[in-house]
Amino acid sequence: MAAIQQSLSTSISSSASTFLGQNKLRFRNQNVSMPGKTSGIVRCVATPSTEKTSYKTQVSRNENLAKLQAGYLFPEIARRRSAHMLKHPDAQIISLGIGDTTEPIPEVITSAMAKRAHELSTLNGYSGYGAEQGEKQLRASIASTYYANVGLEEDEIFVSDGAKSDISRLQVLFGSNVSMAVQDPSYPAYVDSSVIMGQTGQFHKDVEKYGNIAYMRCTPENGFFPDLSSVPRTDIIFFCSPNNPTGSVASREQLTKLVQFAKDNGSILVYDSAYAMYICDDSPKSIFEIPGAKEVAIEVSSFSKYAGFTGVRLGWTAIPKALLYSDGFPVAKDFNRIVCTSFNGASNIAQAGGLACLSPDGFKAMMDVVGYYKENTQIIMDTFNSLGYKVYGGKNAPYVWVHFPGRSSWEVFSEILEKTHVVTTPGSGFGPGGEGFVRVSAFGHRENVIEACRRFKELYK
Amino acid sequence: MAAIQQSLSTSISSSASTFLGQNKLRFRNQNVSMPGKTSGIVRCVATPSTEKTSYKTQVSRNENLAKLQAGYLFPEIARRRSAHMLKHPDAQIISLGIGDTTEPIPEVITSAMAKRAHELSTLNGYSGYGAEQGEKQLRASIASTYYANVGLEEDEIFVSDGAKSDISRLQVLFGSNVSMAVQDPSYPAYVDSSVIMGQTGQFHKDVEKYGNIAYMRCTPENGFFPDLSSVPRTDIIFFCSPNNPTGSVASREQLTKLVQFAKDNGSILVYDSAYAMYICDDSPKSIFEIPGAKEVAIEVSSFSKYAGFTGVRLGWTAIPKALLYSDGFPVAKDFNRIVCTSFNGASNIAQAGGLACLSPDGFKAMMDVVGYYKENTQIIMDTFNSLGYKVYGGKNAPYVWVHFPGRSSWEVFSEILEKTHVVTTPGSGFGPGGEGFVRVSAFGHRENVIEACRRFKELYK
Repeated sequence: MAAIQQSLSTSISSSASTFLGQNKLRFRNQNVSMPGKTSGIVRCVATPSTEKTSYKTQVSRNENLAKLQAGYLFPEIARRRSAHMLKHPDAQIISLGIGDTTEPIPEVITSAMAKRAHELSTLNGYSGYGAEQGEKQLRASIASTYYANVGLEEDEIFVSDGAKSDISRLQVLFGSNVSMAVQDPSYPAYVDSSVIMGQTGQFHKDVEKYGNIAYMRCTPENGFFPDLSSVPRTDIIFFCSPNNPTGSVASREQLTKLVQFAKDNGSILVYDSAYAMYICDDSPKSIFEIPGAKEVAIEVSSFSKYAGFTGVRLGWTAIPKALLYSDGFPVAKDFNRIVCTSFNGASNIAQAGGLACLSPDGFKAMMDVVGYYKENTQIIMDTFNSLGYKVYGGKNAPYVWVHFPGRSSWEVFSEILEKTHVVTTPGSGFGPGGEGFVRVSAFGHRENVIEACRRFKELYK
Repeated sequence: MAAIQQSLSTSISSSASTFLGQNKLRFRNQNVSMPGKTSGIVRCVATPSTEKTSYKTQVSRNENLAKLQAGYLFPEIARRRSAHMLKHPDAQIISLGIGDTTEPIPEVITSAMAKRAHELSTLNGYSGYGAEQGEKQLRASIASTYYANVGLEEDEIFVSDGAKSDISRLQVLFGSNVSMAVQDPSYPAYVDSSVIMGQTGQFHKDVEKYGNIAYMRCTPENGFFPDLSSVPRTDIIFFCSPNNPTGSVASREQLTKLVQFAKDNGSILVYDSAYAMYICDDSPKSIFEIPGAKEVAIEVSSFSKYAGFTGVRLGWTAIPKALLYSDGFPVAKDFNRIVCTSFNGASNIAQAGGLACLSPDGFKAMMDVVGYYKENTQIIMDTFNSLGYKVYGGKNAPYVWVHFPGRSSWEVFSEILEKTHVVTTPGSGFGPGGEGFVRVSAFGHRENVIEACRRFKELYK
């Protein structure tokens, strides 16, 4: 206990809540936290020495990093979670917050990774540097599994260590002189990476928005699809479907409008399809199902939420050859240069896992994992529906977006944490458009999801 | 053959030699290329459609990427290598060029990775998102193995997917408004990532340098240590020791001067120690052995060249808490924000391998791998010494820097390739200061190194 309190008062992670990851990790790998396990949770990272007048370099801090807000979502949640643990040391906390996978990776996939690891200790099985763009066979397999019907080819697939890494590499690709639009609410990495690259203005506290970003409001009123007639032209448009955090999926008709909007504006669409395999209706699973998308879109995706690869790290980005800058230069050619200069390929062992994921048995096993989480989603949706709450998302995504009209997201978050010891995510953390909502993640062991729902029912009956 | 010729004439990789990685991979994993194996070598990436007038977006190409030079080192080498293969289809090509590891990873390390992979398919062994900064145990182990004597702590270590990735993340950290210095010659990623981030001016063909970069000339005359009195003040100084490509190592006295130089100028020193375990004299293996370095330096390192992890992908960056920007803000705190926003941690399986590397048995096994390559180095050095050439490096590094005074590096490279079918690297590719040198890598199977040296002796007897 004392150790925790000390950490809370001295580490950067608590004293400055900009320190996202430090706090974020506190509730990773902990779907349920037992009181006795807390000692390993709070970690100190880069605690500054404040006792003495220190030597300082004459290098100015990057002003873009200084723009990032102190009140970032995940550190604040972690701070409140930690405070809650101190206050209720005997509570069995359940985390349906961060969206971390909890179920084992199917054996057919881990066996392939173990086999590749063993082979690396043999003369014939050893391989050193792989292609920065990914192993040929995996690129081909991703192309044929996900893009055969839209005619994307193996050389248009760039294998990555995950979508988050590639989102930042894409921002480096675009540089600081572009403007961008995002769904509001949206996954915070789009906005934060844009701020870091210097594409934005300062944060305006009154509206909770950065300057020079177009926030495309997505609410129940517009079916979580933005009113494009009110969106200004930007160079880049980030769009995630099925959406994190709202769980909504865009229809073919809506995506057709979006592609046309991008084309009319000469914009590049960065489409995040990391949850596409959760789609069970006839919504497009790839932006490239929309005619003409190859001339305007990039697609970022990941094995994380399909195969439980959140820790293994493997994803991909598809950039069609037909996507050109205004001077006719192929976007893929510059992205290749970025990948080759700033990245040396995903781990060969992870790539062996990715290949196994796309084998017939592996794909079926991935679908089983997806199905398991979808059952969780149904349980959570049923729970809030039965309590009379308006519930969105869920059907085609592992996230349930629960509406608490007229209430503050943070207030509801706190109420749920205080009364049920369940960690959720306040909607306003994903942008001002998320105010009044709470995101409940379906990533959890079944018994924990059931127990969390039992507590929800007790609280809101 | 026809397939190769077609690829050579149509792919971006041959038509535009800026396409580094595409070409680079052609001679990866091919210490010896057999003629019958060529079909899988030439790959097409993102071939642009040139036949028709295409739709173009209205997004401007990032002007920093446009600054990068077409005549980049590795694509040009690959182009020449491919041309050579076409001309000499029966030649047994030996690659001592790119510096890719060739020897199997010790079994004690691969077993740990295979074990971790298997555990991921179990309920108790599964883990999802890890800490972005790396697993606590690995950070602690890196700190205690490499930095115990200099007092660096676990929370000052950031685990990465390799030094190359972290070099670019460091550039994103610094932003576009800094000036930098590099050793000339040096590993091309420092300069290229600086260009991409917009820190530099245009490339000046007459001097073969980018504007706004201070090139610190390292030659036999100055013992491969720059004359600091002639180096202007910059915000950032990249320094690699043991050096790639010269193989030279800086002494304690020299590094003390370097740290003092950085301190006098208020600069941040980014020290690349990726070859430190090749040091066999009493030169410092870490910049932090130099008093005061913690206030000015960052150290980037990697398991790639110790354990053969070039394909597994694992490294680390050490940023002391005492390193502060001019406003007193800790550099590590902003780097942590970058890591959390742009990266989700190295693969957990690779991290299990890293932990095994640092176990007593693993460390011994790594040293055996290093020892093997050092024997190769000795063979290469002896060969050129016996032929009367001045040879530098080698002793504390896996690279031998052979002097061909008065000759063009490219000319010598071509002569060696043409006459011996051995791929080396022309020194001028690492910067203008490398002119007149050729780098010979010691990464190769023993029999190939011996055969290459036999051919060298035949050529230069």
